[in-house]
Amino acid sequence: MGNCMYGLCDSFGCSKNTNIRLKLPAVCFIWQIAMIILFGIFVRYNEESDTHWIEHKKTKRNLSDIENDFYYRYPSFQDVHVMIFVGFGFLMTFLKRYSFGAVGFNFLIAAFGIQWALLMQGWFHSFGTGKILIAVENLINADFCVGSCLIAYGAVLGKVSPVQLLVMTLCGVTLFAIDEFIILNVIHAKDAGGSMSIHTFGACYGLAISWVLYRPDLNQSKRLLGSVYHSDVFAMIGTLFLWLFWPSFNSAICSHGDGQHRAAINTYLALASTVLTSVAISSLSKDKGKLDMVHIQNSTLAGGVAVGTAAEFMLMPYGALIVGFCCGIISTLGYVYVTPFLEKNLKIQDTCGINNLHCMPGIIGGIVGAISAAGATEYVYGSEGLAAMFPMVPRLQGGHQAAGLCVAIVFGIGGGIAVGTVLKLPIWGDPADDNCFDDEVYWELPEDEESHSVILEYNNHMRNKHQDVCETNFSVEHR
Amino acid sequence: MGNCMYGLCDSFGCSKNTNIRLKLPAVCFIWQIAMIILFGIFVRYNEESDTHWIEHKKTKRNLSDIENDFYYRYPSFQDVHVMIFVGFGFLMTFLKRYSFGAVGFNFLIAAFGIQWALLMQGWFHSFGTGKILIAVENLINADFCVGSCLIAYGAVLGKVSPVQLLVMTLCGVTLFAIDEFIILNVIHAKDAGGSMSIHTFGACYGLAISWVLYRPDLNQSKRLLGSVYHSDVFAMIGTLFLWLFWPSFNSAICSHGDGQHRAAINTYLALASTVLTSVAISSLSKDKGKLDMVHIQNSTLAGGVAVGTAAEFMLMPYGALIVGFCCGIISTLGYVYVTPFLEKNLKIQDTCGINNLHCMPGIIGGIVGAISAAGATEYVYGSEGLAAMFPMVPRLQGGHQAAGLCVAIVFGIGGGIAVGTVLKLPIWGDPADDNCFDDEVYWELPEDEESHSVILEYNNHMRNKHQDVCETNFSVEHR
Amino acid sequence: MGNCMYGLCDSFGCSKNTNIRLKLPAVCFIWQIAMIILFGIFVRYNEESDTHWIEHKKTKRNLSDIENDFYYRYPSFQDVHVMIFVGFGFLMTFLKRYSFGAVGFNFLIAAFGIQWALLMQGWFHSFGTGKILIAVENLINADFCVGSCLIAYGAVLGKVSPVQLLVMTLCGVTLFAIDEFIILNVIHAKDAGGSMSIHTFGACYGLAISWVLYRPDLNQSKRLLGSVYHSDVFAMIGTLFLWLFWPSFNSAICSHGDGQHRAAINTYLALASTVLTSVAISSLSKDKGKLDMVHIQNSTLAGGVAVGTAAEFMLMPYGALIVGFCCGIISTLGYVYVTPFLEKNLKIQDTCGINNLHCMPGIIGGIVGAISAAGATEYVYGSEGLAAMFPMVPRLQGGHQAAGLCVAIVFGIGGGIAVGTVLKLPIWGDPADDNCFDDEVYWELPEDEESHSVILEYNNHMRNKHQDVCETNFSVEHR
Repeated sequence: MGNCMYGLCDSFGCSKNTNIRLKLPAVCFIWQIAMIILFGIFVRYNEESDTHWIEHKKTKRNLSDIENDFYYRYPSFQDVHVMIFVGFGFLMTFLKRYSFGAVGFNFLIAAFGIQWALLMQGWFHSFGTGKILIAVENLINADFCVGSCLIAYGAVLGKVSPVQLLVMTLCGVTLFAIDEFIILNVIHAKDAGGSMSIHTFGACYGLAISWVLYRPDLNQSKRLLGSVYHSDVFAMIGTLFLWLFWPSFNSAICSHGDGQHRAAINTYLALASTVLTSVAISSLSKDKGKLDMVHIQNSTLAGGVAVGTAAEFMLMPYGALIVGFCCGIISTLGYVYVTPFLEKNLKIQDTCGINNLHCMPGIIGGIVGAISAAGATEYVYGSEGLAAMFPMVPRLQGGHQAAGLCVAIVFGIGGGIAVGTVLKLPIWGDPADDNCFDDEVYWELPEDEESHSVILEYNNHMRNKHQDVCETNFSVEHR
Repeated sequence: MGNCMYGLCDSFGCSKNTNIRLKLPAVCFIWQIAMIILFGIFVRYNEESDTHWIEHKKTKRNLSDIENDFYYRYPSFQDVHVMIFVGFGFLMTFLKRYSFGAVGFNFLIAAFGIQWALLMQGWFHSFGTGKILIAVENLINADFCVGSCLIAYGAVLGKVSPVQLLVMTLCGVTLFAIDEFIILNVIHAKDAGGSMSIHTFGACYGLAISWVLYRPDLNQSKRLLGSVYHSDVFAMIGTLFLWLFWPSFNSAICSHGDGQHRAAINTYLALASTVLTSVAISSLSKDKGKLDMVHIQNSTLAGGVAVGTAAEFMLMPYGALIVGFCCGIISTLGYVYVTPFLEKNLKIQDTCGINNLHCMPGIIGGIVGAISAAGATEYVYGSEGLAAMFPMVPRLQGGHQAAGLCVAIVFGIGGGIAVGTVLKLPIWGDPADDNCFDDEVYWELPEDEESHSVILEYNNHMRNKHQDVCETNFSVEHR
Repeated sequence: MGNCMYGLCDSFGCSKNTNIRLKLPAVCFIWQIAMIILFGIFVRYNEESDTHWIEHKKTKRNLSDIENDFYYRYPSFQDVHVMIFVGFGFLMTFLKRYSFGAVGFNFLIAAFGIQWALLMQGWFHSFGTGKILIAVENLINADFCVGSCLIAYGAVLGKVSPVQLLVMTLCGVTLFAIDEFIILNVIHAKDAGGSMSIHTFGACYGLAISWVLYRPDLNQSKRLLGSVYHSDVFAMIGTLFLWLFWPSFNSAICSHGDGQHRAAINTYLALASTVLTSVAISSLSKDKGKLDMVHIQNSTLAGGVAVGTAAEFMLMPYGALIVGFCCGIISTLGYVYVTPFLEKNLKIQDTCGINNLHCMPGIIGGIVGAISAAGATEYVYGSEGLAAMFPMVPRLQGGHQAAGLCVAIVFGIGGGIAVGTVLKLPIWGDPADDNCFDDEVYWELPEDEESHSVILEYNNHMRNKHQDVCETNFSVEHR
């Protein structure tokens, strides 16, 4: 028993050096200073967030203050913001001993990523003018961009150091900005909720990195690769805020008026439908029909991913329900069959199952977008509506949508392999195989009353107890 | 000790069959497919969420995009959405071993219920046109409708299977839609925040079901009918999001402008007042003045329920405070005296105390609505304001309000008895009396480190320890 | 062991009388009744929340309903509301055994405080008219006002009774209203996000009270002055909702249009920057570069505090980043060096470290506001913009800003000493030194399965176990 109690601690003095006392502060300071300099050179307010708004609104048919874009988009922005920080952060707290890393590193990389995203996305949309003029829509786009990196984090959760995560985010945001520019501005595909540019890209990026960083001996950390009762409840906080605010996510940058309105409705319906089929497959997949929290926490969100690209289209309420219906099934089956397959056969260790929540549903979303764009008619959209929605004729638009999906996959996988190779260098302070999924490596944990280790110990204790008692009695009786 | 350790597990192989591996998936799949078909036939976007909005806004005095109803109601909708899924879900996580069921089944039935509610409510408001045209206000109303079923869930929490809950929701939504149509469209009562149609109806429905499903031997699960420290903190998440967003709940479907504005103010004030009197009574009711978390989690919300019907009226700020003042007292006294009385004398087992949080305050809300409508004057409302607020003269309006309250009670009790009788059939996979309030029945629990059972075991262990030691010593000494 | 098990309980029968069964209900009832009477005399709806809005909007160039101030401010109000109740409440749940007190007493005093704040702030802005006419902006201001008292609560967390907290809030709100009136209406300083009036005042007020209530023997409660794993995760809920909604906090009462828009952008950026420097310093301050949850929970918010006063100004995006950069460093260093210094040398026991999160960053915020106001130019603001922003010429404005900061500090310290002296009277039911930070004193705790005491006990048990076994064996072997 004595060894057991200190066994966890002993194992920290292990083969890898996880000391990040110089690396992490250095990266944080240098990058943040770089941000300040670049913002100083490039970033200014746009006419709606500048004090010149007073003059601006007079020149535009006497705009009312309420027609400042702030009031169209700020409530959605705040919802998206909650999804990025609370939603993604808490969704990943399900591991019994990695809740600090889940919510804390998510916080760190998102806070860095939004700054870099404002710059990268800004540069692509301000060729020529020299200045990046920001407003609330830029903040939403920065949050979106970071979302793709947080998805990627899900694949490597517990297996990388915060320094690696920052590098992953720096590169991920850069790739995202290029990828997004090609999809939206070169190919002219539509992607309001980012099924392609955010989810498919982010998931491919994360899975490719995880493939490069494959750890054959990861089962040494198996004891920590699961949840405890309360960590599953914490994860439900993440699930629910993602689920609830997804209509805001998909509608946040849609066109004013009917666009935002319709995107919210479609997403609301797709998500509702997903819940039922996720529950159904979860129950079918287990003995006695018991539900698995992993499915409820993740697969119930797949409909929101898959309806992203087409959210603004005239998908029709039943169309949204069908998308959600299929994705709940596919995503849950993914957790049951595809995740083990990927680990065993393709050497992809996907901690959170982002393949099932983001990759497969994201690709479905791209396909749904292509089909529904190709099938758009003047009868359904009205002639003015159709012209406002698509930059080209429907059939052509469908082809461009499909091309956009391919770009996202190529950028994700290619970028992930390249970045993964860099992250494989032995300089980033990542944990040893028997130290994964453990907050002890990068966090000061509460000292005396670690509830988790107590519980681990207690179980060991109970297992050993009868033996002890037996042996004691034995030694007494057979004296 | 050995028996203790496996005693909980042994008891699962009990008299009732809780295997839902066929029932639950079948219900989920069939009902969701039915939803898709019905949505395909009936549901379309309305003119504000359709691409024809471009043309529509031109025909209406050149509306600005910002005057799309989306911008009036979407922020409130999101708040209501959070209340339904996070608020209700987490409020019920207080039980030590039923947090998965609380938040998970809440999620499932709400996701189903909102779809069915869109149809049921839509049919009642689209006689003749044949199509249900939806927009953000319909989403809010669907959330409201589901709210009444989640209230009913509170009464039977831990005692029913998810299949029973789905049946309860199907019937509850149906009854709600009829009930609401009668109250609002036949009787022409006003009920912005749903004191009558949501809270009174939902609570009566749940209590009647609980009465029919009475379990005389429920004390076999007594060990699980309480909280642990952290489950009480989780429940406070639910409480606070309900409390905070209640102003949005009561104002979400009020008339544009002053109606929404006033409803939010009234609710804000009523809720503030309730907190103080709940705390006061809670402290008075206990030895040494210690506070009871059950009261803080629940009774502090009673003011929001009771101000629902009259939220839009010129209740005056002090009027709202008075309503909250009374309800905090009544609701807390309800937990102290009425809940035990109901269980002992009326055979109503009310797990969450919905009688105290929804039934009594809902009825008070209906009465407040009737009195304040009957007392409305042109002096207070202004002539235009009075005409815009009430469809008939004040005194008559008051009578109709009272009639609406009676309808809600009758529908709730009658419907609950009917539905409860169906749910009593031995085909739904409900748990045995000694298995209630236990997630083990319907959920795959984390295997090795169940924090709760550890704690339960540990306590047993500590109780037995001295005996063990004594006996060991005894056997040694008296050898 | 037997003594250990009951040791915690025994110690409650201690020297101080913590029975609040008469005091707390009496204060709650009497004060709430006083509120009702005062609201009855003074408080009415304003023209935007009254049914006379119908007539009002016609007289004002045919306003649209959407131009009711409700739609400009309600989404921000709800975000602020979440910050006050969930943000502050959960931020303080980090203590292992004071989560009920943190979130529960926060709830109680905020619910009382907002009512009193509506009156106090109303009286100062309705001289002459006799009636306080309220609308959504008043609700925001009331939440702001209460925020300062909740900041003060952070300094005395775990060391005072709820009755003391209510007295502290009554006096704090009163002082705040005077302080704010002087700063905004007499001195004409600008303070949109309240760096001076909310944060500096609130922190000085709390620290001064803590100084007066100094407990030399507080280390008797040392065992409870720390976190457990899950309590730290709960605290992150508070942190994240504060961090996420801070842009709404700082922009909530800014001028319509560009003012709110710019304040949100500035706050978003300052907070992002703060996260990186907080992490950097946290990592630098610890062995092996491990992060400290206390820093992540608190210091990451300092940028939001410091950008409060200048949020509406043309601070420029890089300016906001610089403010956040500095405050992350200063606040984290505060936790490492200043908090221990204050306790040891100045006899200020600051449970939550409000000096580092609110006092120092608040003062920085005041200085940033003064400098950026003094440096405002027509070139940057435009002539109309400059006139709209500042009531006087920039250089003079800068001086007035600095004067405002001094007023906040003086009111905070002076008021805190006075109120602290009152709270020192031995009549308020505060806990003994060995009872601090313990929910047992004021809350009915779950009886059988207190997870925390189990864990405490279990650790003791494990420590003693080998001894026991050894002794048993010894007694057997040496018989």
